[in-house]
Parts: sequence; structure tokens; C-alpha cells
Amino acid sequence: MSAVFDLTAELIRRRSVTPEDAGCLTLLADRLGAAGFSIEHLRYGEVDNLWATHGKTGPLLMFLGHTDVVPTGPAETWHSDPFEPVVRDGLLYGRGAADMKGSVAAMVVALEQFVTAHPDHRGRVGLLLTSDEEGVAIDGVRKVAEHFRATGEQIDWCVVGEPSAKEKLGDLIRVGRRGSLSGTLTVRGVQGHVAYPEKARNPIHAVAPALTELAAEVWDKGNDDFPPTSFQISNLNAGTGANNVIPGTLTALFNFRYGTASRADDLRVRTEALLTRHGLDWQIDWQLSGEPFRTPPGGAVREAVVAVCRELCGIDPEQSTGGGTSDGRFIAPLGAEVVELGPVNATIHKVDECVSVADLEKLPSLYFAICARLLS
Amino acid sequence: MSAVFDLTAELIRRRSVTPEDAGCLTLLADRLGAAGFSIEHLRYGEVDNLWATHGKTGPLLMFLGHTDVVPTGPAETWHSDPFEPVVRDGLLYGRGAADMKGSVAAMVVALEQFVTAHPDHRGRVGLLLTSDEEGVAIDGVRKVAEHFRATGEQIDWCVVGEPSAKEKLGDLIRVGRRGSLSGTLTVRGVQGHVAYPEKARNPIHAVAPALTELAAEVWDKGNDDFPPTSFQISNLNAGTGANNVIPGTLTALFNFRYGTASRADDLRVRTEALLTRHGLDWQIDWQLSGEPFRTPPGGAVREAVVAVCRELCGIDPEQSTGGGTSDGRFIAPLGAEVVELGPVNATIHKVDECVSVADLEKLPSLYFAICARLLS
Repeated sequence: MSAVFDLTAELIRRRSVTPEDAGCLTLLADRLGAAGFSIEHLRYGEVDNLWATHGKTGPLLMFLGHTDVVPTGPAETWHSDPFEPVVRDGLLYGRGAADMKGSVAAMVVALEQFVTAHPDHRGRVGLLLTSDEEGVAIDGVRKVAEHFRATGEQIDWCVVGEPSAKEKLGDLIRVGRRGSLSGTLTVRGVQGHVAYPEKARNPIHAVAPALTELAAEVWDKGNDDFPPTSFQISNLNAGTGANNVIPGTLTALFNFRYGTASRADDLRVRTEALLTRHGLDWQIDWQLSGEPFRTPPGGAVREAVVAVCRELCGIDPEQSTGGGTSDGRFIAPLGAEVVELGPVNATIHKVDECVSVADLEKLPSLYFAICARLLS
Repeated sequence: MSAVFDLTAELIRRRSVTPEDAGCLTLLADRLGAAGFSIEHLRYGEVDNLWATHGKTGPLLMFLGHTDVVPTGPAETWHSDPFEPVVRDGLLYGRGAADMKGSVAAMVVALEQFVTAHPDHRGRVGLLLTSDEEGVAIDGVRKVAEHFRATGEQIDWCVVGEPSAKEKLGDLIRVGRRGSLSGTLTVRGVQGHVAYPEKARNPIHAVAPALTELAAEVWDKGNDDFPPTSFQISNLNAGTGANNVIPGTLTALFNFRYGTASRADDLRVRTEALLTRHGLDWQIDWQLSGEPFRTPPGGAVREAVVAVCRELCGIDPEQSTGGGTSDGRFIAPLGAEVVELGPVNATIHKVDECVSVADLEKLPSLYFAICARLLS
């Protein structure tokens, strides 16, 4: 098969469940080093980050990606081993195929080809990879960005390889991202025997109406730049295991994705007021993962990515700020224009994650063309 | 201290968390054997059951109890080691102090005293103990009752030592028990990324309105014999652990305690209809632990227990069918009159479980008096 297919398959075989790297970054550092890139390993805590650059001065175009993947869930629910790349009906299956080992492989292949074709390109081109994007994301690009701020590294343009497409490659690019605000909710009741509910207070029964209202709440209607804020409970746990004991506490993990129509502080206040209104004995540990960011139209990288989609995919891409967070949230505050372009995201974080082989084969040419427009 | 206190303390020190026996039954078998009782060990699967009898023919009065206890929960939340008996302010603390190692010790002491005082009493008196009442209760009294049915053992009267009192010993006896119907509910959604809720289906959000309605439902209003049916969710779990993944399934364990105003089949049908009405993709594994039973007034053992409470406690006891299930549900269908008399149940299944030392000291005299009324 092609270079990008082979490299994607090699990466899928490495079980790099976040924050494990499982040798992905070493493999890619060796290839880019061999292609003439300067290699820097930026290690923070247990997390490895790779910063590979080519060129000496002038504007800096950064490609940004991650090699870690989310857990597979029960492996037996997959149609094939999630860490064994398999092609069925034109789709390459495996955890990380779409999010985002395919994009990472395509960036590496594109950069190899670009510096071979244009050894003396203008400006600088770099690839920043982390193995801590899907997890807590403390020691990944967040720390690298602090390092760049401290050392005065100026990033002009950033292309993130997160899977952005809806149905086919090039149909949607990201020009911003929502903020992410998480909370760990604890609701206290009183433990007791199920046959004496009047002597206990069941936190499951107590919280159910509040969860119903939280799930149905319209937090805002969005605005021109962002879709409406969304709220999801990801984990909910209560109970001792025994079926005759009313539990004493319940815990829930939840998350807001929000645009500039809401502020994090308002979401906190409204959530807490709702819980109090329901008479609950509650506590929340809040965590703000990232504020929203947006790259305005007219900038060089946004225009370059749109032009490449039109020319090579024959599509005028939707320019969206929807979807999840990405590590772009750490690079944008450094003053960079951030745009995201990657394969179809329909199966990411699900069982039987896959990427279209045809899209995968085309992706290096898109990243190559972006380099060519900005740096040659 | 007294014989009943010492024996209760000895039992509390044995860590007989259900279905473990931790040597309790051997200890008690040795004592009753020494007092002249015939000892039978009825072992089913991993569970030991003890059947000790005295006397040859005529009506059979059975005392019934269990030596297993519920788990302690986090031991550090107790004010003292749950398996180390400690007296504070007239209360004996320890897991099982009230449910029901105190009653078991009192029955053994009463039976020792009764057969010593009345070696040639009329009829037969027996003590049936199991170490599988608090758990699945498959291989305990359920199996012993099948054995009695097969061998033609006829039980006329049964006194269960479950903690029945509300505030002081003798203020409440049980003359029946509700049925217990449990279910394991699985609600299926579609797993996905929290930032793309439109591509997933969150089973937590989906089930919340149904749980709200189930928790608020009035299943019946009870009747003269039984309080209203109660419904409790004891365990609720969903989530992969990761806070950016919408889970694919949710599971809940729930339990009905119901009297003769409802039938198990109706509760099943109404629960299932409610879940279907909420549009859920659900499945329930049902388990019927016991049908309700009731001992009508006028029978010898019920009248004896009421008279003993009046004489020795100075209280006209409330004659109730509330509270949890007990192993009486397996004995009543054999044709026995079943009544339950034990200490205050306010702390059972909770941290800092305890029994009043004064009540504990008085309990053997109550059981002795019941024997004397029926068998001397």
C-alpha cells in the first residue's frame, strides 16, 4: 500500500491508550529526523511531546496532532481487534484510525515530501505531537505552549489534524472551538436498608428530577460564531453493590461545551442554583479545560485551507466552530491563526472506529498543498 | 457480664459478612449440643445451616435466626471497629449487634435455660440458624424449607428474632412481611464523544425522567394488613471512567417491597410500561425473592408473643407487617404461624450499628416466656 496507509497501520498497532505513547513518537521522530528535521523531545511528567522543525527564519507554520487514543471499551463488541488494522469495504478499522493516527501519518508523509521538493522553502514548518490530548491534557500541549511562551517561540499559523469532516474529506473545517467546563458532582443522602426508606435518604431518587432538568436545559441559543452550549453527563455512580442497601452518596461527572454566548462563570452559577433549588445536599469540583477561541476570516492559513479544499476536494468547506475541544485551545492564545482539517469524524470514540482509505490516501496532498501555498 | 452479653460479643468478633459464617454456627451448635439438643448441619453449596431440636413429639415451636451480617461500608466511618464489641452510654456497638447476633445469642441462652428448667416439656422446640440471610439467600432457609417439605417436618409456630422494635423492646412485633421483587435494569444508548451528542444517545439523560417518575410513583395505598408498596433504586452505574465519553449503557438495581394490595405481576407490567412510555431501549432481569405473608390474629404463637410483651415489657405491642423481608417468608408457606420479635432496628445496616444493653439483657426472658406459654 501507500506510505500514508502503511504508517497509519503501524501507528494503530501501537496500543497508545492515553496517556501511553507505546513508541509512536520515537517512530515518527526517527522518520522526520531522517528527512532533515530538527527534533526536540519536550517531556513533562510522564508525557512525551515531539517538536520537529525545518527551516531557519521567517513565518512559522505548525502542524499539530496527537498519538494517544481513547480506551476501546469492551474489545469483544468490536468486529475486529481494535489494535489490528483491517480494511473492509474501503474502510480502515482500528482505534485511532480517524482520531487521529491517520492525520498524523498524513502530516508526516506530507512534510517529508514537502522538504524533499522544497529543501530551501521560505519560513519554517514544524510538527508538534503529544501523547496527552485525550486524557487529562495537563502535560501535553498545555505545557508545550507555556514553554513556547517562555522561550519566545512565535507561531504564525497552526493546522490541527483533528477529524473535522462530516461525510467526506474537505466538507468541513474548524475555524474555532468551544470551551470545555467539567464538574464532579457529589450528592449526599443517608445510607439505610431498602425496606426502611423513611429512615434513609436515597440520593438516586433525590437527584433524578435535577438531572432531568439539567439534561433538558437550554443554556443558550448560540451565536453567529458558535452553536448552542451542550451539557452531557458522562459518568454516574451510586450503590454499595448490595441490592438491599440505599446508598449514602452519588457521584456524577458532567461537561459543558460552550461558545461565546455563555461564560463559564454563568454556567457554574446556573448549575449550582438548579441543584440548590431541588433541595439537594451537593458539592461540585469544577475544572475549566479551555476557553472558547475563534480564528477570524481573511487570515492566510484560513484562506489557504479553504482554497485547498476547493481545489483538491472540489468542495467549498463549511467553516465551523462546532465539535470537541482540541489542542488548538492552547496554541490560539499564543497569537496563532488556528484552522483544523482532518478526515470524517463519524466513528471517533466509538466501537469500530474507521477511516475511508480513499480519504486517507488523499490527505497528504492537502497538507502538502497548504505548505506549498504558505511557504514556497 | 451476663451470658447473653458475652455470647453476643463473641459472635460480633466473628467477621461473618454474608455468606461467611466465620465459626458462629459451630460455636452455637457446641453449646446447644451440650444442653441436650439434637444437632443437624444442613449444608447447601457454600452455606452452613444449623437445625437444633429438643423434645420428641407434639407441636413444634421453631426459633429462627441468622448469623451473617451485611458489609460494614468504609470501616473508618465507624466510631469504633465494627467487629470489636464496645459499650458506650448503655449501647453495645458492632456489626450485627441488632441484626441479629443479639437475638441469636438471646435465643440460645433462653433455650438452654428452658430445657434445663423443663427437661420434659411438651412438644418440641427447635432453633434454625443460617449464614445466608443478608445475601442472595439461595442456600439458606429457602433450601432448608424445601428439605422440611420433602421430609414432612411440620412446623406449627415460628418466632423470628429479626429486630422488630421501633424505640424500645416490645413496642412492635411483626405478624407478616411484605414481598420483595427486584430487577436489574439495563438501558441502552449509543456511545460517543461528549462534544458530538447528536451522534450519540446518552442513556443517563434518557433514563432520568423515567427514574424521576418511578421514584415518585404511588404503587398502591396499602390495605389493613400492609403499608403501601415502596420502590427503591439501590445501585446506578454508567460511564467509562473517561469524562469525554458518553456511555453506551446504564444499569440500575431496584427493589419493590409490596403487600397484598399489589401483585408482583402488576408491578412488573407497570414498570415496563413506564419505561416503554419514556421511549427507552430497556431490558430487565426480574427476581422475585418472596411473596407477602401474614399470620392472622387468634393463633397461639401470636397471642403468646403479644402477652409476653404486655407482661414483661409493659407495652401493648403494635402488630405490624412493615419492614424488610425475613426468612419467615420461607417458613410461612409450610403452614406455620410466624411472628417476629427482636430489639430496636434503628441502626441496622448502618454505620455504628448498636443494641441497647438493657434490651439485650431482657430478651432471653421474653423468648423463655414464649416457650413456657406454648410448651410447658
